[in-house]
Amino acid sequence: MITQTVKPAAGDTAARIAALNRGDRVFHVVLAQQFDRERIEQLCRLAEMVRRVAATRHGTQFLNTLLSYRRAMLYFIQPSTRTFLSFTAACQVLGMPYNSVRERSTSSEIKGESEDDTVRVLSQYFHLIIIRHPAEGMAERTAHLLNEMPRTIPVINGGSGKDQHPTQALLDVYTLFRCFAPQRDEHVDPEYGGNPFAGRTVAFVGDLQRGRTVRSLAYLLCRYPGVRLLFISPPQLQIGDDILEYVRRHDIEYELGDDLRARVGDCDAIYMTRLQDEWDVAGESKSIDYNRYALTWDMAKDFKPDLAILHPLPRRHELDQRLDALPQAKYWEQVRNGMWMRAALIAFIFNVDNAIRDHFHSYYAY
Amino acid sequence: MITQTVKPAAGDTAARIAALNRGDRVFHVVLAQQFDRERIEQLCRLAEMVRRVAATRHGTQFLNTLLSYRRAMLYFIQPSTRTFLSFTAACQVLGMPYNSVRERSTSSEIKGESEDDTVRVLSQYFHLIIIRHPAEGMAERTAHLLNEMPRTIPVINGGSGKDQHPTQALLDVYTLFRCFAPQRDEHVDPEYGGNPFAGRTVAFVGDLQRGRTVRSLAYLLCRYPGVRLLFISPPQLQIGDDILEYVRRHDIEYELGDDLRARVGDCDAIYMTRLQDEWDVAGESKSIDYNRYALTWDMAKDFKPDLAILHPLPRRHELDQRLDALPQAKYWEQVRNGMWMRAALIAFIFNVDNAIRDHFHSYYAY
Amino acid sequence: MITQTVKPAAGDTAARIAALNRGDRVFHVVLAQQFDRERIEQLCRLAEMVRRVAATRHGTQFLNTLLSYRRAMLYFIQPSTRTFLSFTAACQVLGMPYNSVRERSTSSEIKGESEDDTVRVLSQYFHLIIIRHPAEGMAERTAHLLNEMPRTIPVINGGSGKDQHPTQALLDVYTLFRCFAPQRDEHVDPEYGGNPFAGRTVAFVGDLQRGRTVRSLAYLLCRYPGVRLLFISPPQLQIGDDILEYVRRHDIEYELGDDLRARVGDCDAIYMTRLQDEWDVAGESKSIDYNRYALTWDMAKDFKPDLAILHPLPRRHELDQRLDALPQAKYWEQVRNGMWMRAALIAFIFNVDNAIRDHFHSYYAY
Repeated sequence: MITQTVKPAAGDTAARIAALNRGDRVFHVVLAQQFDRERIEQLCRLAEMVRRVAATRHGTQFLNTLLSYRRAMLYFIQPSTRTFLSFTAACQVLGMPYNSVRERSTSSEIKGESEDDTVRVLSQYFHLIIIRHPAEGMAERTAHLLNEMPRTIPVINGGSGKDQHPTQALLDVYTLFRCFAPQRDEHVDPEYGGNPFAGRTVAFVGDLQRGRTVRSLAYLLCRYPGVRLLFISPPQLQIGDDILEYVRRHDIEYELGDDLRARVGDCDAIYMTRLQDEWDVAGESKSIDYNRYALTWDMAKDFKPDLAILHPLPRRHELDQRLDALPQAKYWEQVRNGMWMRAALIAFIFNVDNAIRDHFHSYYAY
Repeated sequence: MITQTVKPAAGDTAARIAALNRGDRVFHVVLAQQFDRERIEQLCRLAEMVRRVAATRHGTQFLNTLLSYRRAMLYFIQPSTRTFLSFTAACQVLGMPYNSVRERSTSSEIKGESEDDTVRVLSQYFHLIIIRHPAEGMAERTAHLLNEMPRTIPVINGGSGKDQHPTQALLDVYTLFRCFAPQRDEHVDPEYGGNPFAGRTVAFVGDLQRGRTVRSLAYLLCRYPGVRLLFISPPQLQIGDDILEYVRRHDIEYELGDDLRARVGDCDAIYMTRLQDEWDVAGESKSIDYNRYALTWDMAKDFKPDLAILHPLPRRHELDQRLDALPQAKYWEQVRNGMWMRAALIAFIFNVDNAIRDHFHSYYAY
Repeated sequence: MITQTVKPAAGDTAARIAALNRGDRVFHVVLAQQFDRERIEQLCRLAEMVRRVAATRHGTQFLNTLLSYRRAMLYFIQPSTRTFLSFTAACQVLGMPYNSVRERSTSSEIKGESEDDTVRVLSQYFHLIIIRHPAEGMAERTAHLLNEMPRTIPVINGGSGKDQHPTQALLDVYTLFRCFAPQRDEHVDPEYGGNPFAGRTVAFVGDLQRGRTVRSLAYLLCRYPGVRLLFISPPQLQIGDDILEYVRRHDIEYELGDDLRARVGDCDAIYMTRLQDEWDVAGESKSIDYNRYALTWDMAKDFKPDLAILHPLPRRHELDQRLDALPQAKYWEQVRNGMWMRAALIAFIFNVDNAIRDHFHSYYAY
C-alpha cells in the first residue's frame, strides 16, 4: 500500500479556497472556512425543507427522483460507520445511487497503484467523490487532482486527518439553529437566519486538540458576533492556537478552562467530545483524569431549561446515558440532522436545491 | 469490541410478546411464537401474491415502488451470506433502499461505543433494523431499546444466538404449505389456510440441539393439530426439553429417534440439518458418526412420491447432491421462498400489504 | 474454505462455445472467442448509444428504468476494485439493483459449503451472476451449473484465472474503434463497423504471459484482417503459444520483440501492461529489468499524432504520469468505456438493447 504524506496546500486560507473552486465548474467542499453566513443559512434552510418534505410519502418520492441520474463514490479509507451511513442515507434520500471503497488493502488491483490514480479512475465512474481519509489535506489534494482532469467532478471532505470535518460542522450549526431559533409551524418557510447565537454561551468540552469536529465548528461559529466560546479541556488537550488566533481575529469572546462543573449553569449549549486516544503516540492520554470532563447526572440540576447538549458520538463515559431522557439531550436529533444537512449539501452541489424549494413552496408554505 | 451478555427477557412467552408490541406503534418480529395460525397464513398468502406479481415485468415494477420511501438497516454482526442476501433481495423486490453493518470491528468510530448506542444511532437513519447477532436475546433487547426512543422503528430478528430464527420458520412453513397444498391456478387467490398438515409426518434430522431453525419451525408447526413430529438425531444433540414441553402442551404427537433409514418411508417431509460444530466448546461433535444422519441416494427408493425434502442450507455431506435432481428436493425452492416470505413480512410491517392484494386482484384474480 | 481445481472444459473452443449457450434460454459470456465481428460491432454501437443517451438527464432517467425489474449478483472472489466498480456502475446506469459477495471467508454459513452450492443458492435470488474468480475456467463451470438448474440465469465472466477477461477485451476494442474511427456528430447513428483496424499496428507491451486482458483482446483483434500485432515483452514473459497459434490460424501478421523504444514510432496503438508479479511462484520476476518495457516521457517525440495509448490499469512505473496530459493518452477514457460497454452487454443479455436503440433514434438520430 502506498500512502503519501499529503501536506495541506500552502498559502493562506483565502488563497486556498479561491484555488479550490476556480471558475464555476464544480463546487468542492473541503474546508469549514469556505462557508460564510449566507451559505450556512441557505444550507440550514434547505436541510429543514428536505426534512419537512421527507415527512410525507409523497414528498419522499419526489426527493427520491432528484438525483437518480448521478452516482456518488464514498471513498472512505479511514474506518467510519456513522459518517458513512449518514452520507449513504443522504444519497438515498435524494435517490442517488452510490458505491464505496472502504479499504485500500482489499484490492490487489489497487496494490501498487498510486492513490492519485485511484482517484482518477473513480472520477470516470462517478459524479461525486465523498472522501474520508487519515491523511491531513487529502480532500484538498483530491479536489486539485479532479480539477486537472478533463471531466471534473466535485469532492466532499467527509473528514480528513485531525484537521477538518466541514459537514459535521454544518450539521452542528444546523442543530444549534434548531435549538436557538426553533420554528413551530412546519408549513412555513424555515427562517434560519439572523443571529440567534448572539449572547449565547457554547462550551466545547473534552479532547479539543484532536477533535476535528470542534475545530470545524469553531470556524463556523466565528461567523456569529456575540457568541461566547468556552473551551474546557485537560490543559494538555486544549484547542489549537490556530483556532484561538482565528477566534480572536473575528472578535469572538472566548475563555479557556478545565472545570466543567463550575460552568455548566452558564452554558446555552455544551458540545461534549470523547478522548481521541487512537491518535496517541505514546499513550500520553493515560495520565489524564477524563472523568473531570464528563457530563454527569448530578450536574443536570444546574442545566438551563433550554440548554442544548450535543455530542458528535460515539460517546464513552463522558456523557451519562441517564441524560438521554432529558429534553436538553439533542445528540440523537443531531445524528439525524446530519442526514438532512448532507442531503441538502449534495442537492446544492448538483443544483437541484431550487427544485426542493419549489416543491416545498407548492405543497407546504403559504 | 464490546459484546454484552444479553439475556432473554424474563417472564413467560406471552408476557414477552405482549411487552414487545405495546400499543400499535410498530410491529417487531422477534419470536416465532408471535405468529398464530391466522397471521402465518396471511403471510403465506401474501408471499404467494408477491411471487406471482413479481412474475411479470409490470408487476415487478409495481412492487419496486412500494417501499422506495423507507430505508432498511441490516445489522448483521454474526457472519451470514445466505440470510443477508435473502433479506436484501426482499428489500430490492419492494424497492426499499438498505444499507448494512457487517462487522463491529471495521469501525474505529464504533470502537468504545456501547452496542445500545449503535442501535440508537441506526434508528436515526433508517426505518427498519434487521438484526442478526451471536448474542441470544439481542433482537428482543433491540426492540425494547427502540421502544424507548421518541422515534420508534421496527426490528426483525434475522437470527440471534442459538435460540430463534423466526423468518426462517415462516419460509419453511410457506414451503411446506406449497408442498402439502399445491395450487395449480396462478390466477386464483392463493388459499393457504385450512390444515394440510393434519396427518402428515414431518421429520427433523441432525443437530437438533443447536439448530435454531428447527426450534423456530417446531413452534410454528404446533399451530397445526394432527401433525406428527419426528426428531431424529444423535442422542447428545437431541431437541431441547423446552421445545418438547411446548409440543406436549399443544397436544402434538411426537417421537424421538436416531434411525433415519428406518423411518424415511414414513415421512411426508424431511427437514435435514448440518452438524453445527461451530458451537462446539471442546470438540464434542468429533465423536459423533454424523453419517448416520445423512440422507443418501440409496434411501430414495423408500421416499413417498410427494415427500418434501427441506434443508436450511448450507449442506455438507448429510444431503447427497444426487438427490437434487429428484422432484422431492425442495431446498432450492425453499431458498427462493425465503425471499418472497421476507418481502411479504416487510410489506406487512409497513402496511403496504393491502396494496399488494389490490394489485393482485386487479390483474390476476377473478 | 473449499476451493476446487476447476479445469477448463475439454474439447475445442467451438465445441465449448456451442455447449455453453444451448437452445436460446440465456446468453452466457465466458470466452472472448464467443464474439464474432458482427456481435462485437453491435455491442460497440450499443455502448456508444448508451454513452450518448446518458449524456442528458432525460436519457439517464430513461436508462435508469430499463432493468429495475432484474437483480445482479457480483460474485467477486478474486480481489478487484476497478472491474467491480465498473460493473456496478454499469448496473446503476441501467437501474439494475445488485448485491455482491466479495470474500468466501466472511461467511460462516458458507464455510463447509461447496462453491457449486453457493452458485445454486445465488441463482435463486438473482437474475444474473457476474463472476470474478482466481480459478481458471470457473465462469465456464458456473454457466454449466446454471444450465442444469430448472431456473437458468446468465453468467458473465468478470475475469477468471490467468485465462480470460472477455469484457475487458470488448471495452478495449470499443476504445480502439473510437480512436481509429472517431465519429464527430453525436446525433448520428454510431457506425462502428467496417475495418478501421486494417493497416494498423497494435503493440502489446509488458507481461504478456500472465496478462489475461492481452490474451482476450488478441482473440478479438484476430477478427480484423490486416491488423498487425507486435508483442513486446521480456523473453520469459512472452505471449502464450496458444495465442500465437490462434493468430497464425487467422492469418494475422505478428512480430515478437523486446525493444519498445525502437518500435514506438511504428505503432498506431500501444497497449501497456504492468508486471503481474502476484502470480510469481518463486520470485522469478525479480530478475527482469522491467524498465525496458516502460513508456517514458522521452519517447513521446516519436509518437504518431493519432497514436492511442491504452492500459488496463493499475499502472506502476511502466507508464509515465506525464504522458497523461497528451492527447494520445486514452486510458482514462478506456476506464469509462468499460462502464458503457458493460452496460451495453447487460442490456443485450436481457433483450433491452432494442429499447435503447429506439430511444436513441427517437431523440438523437435523424
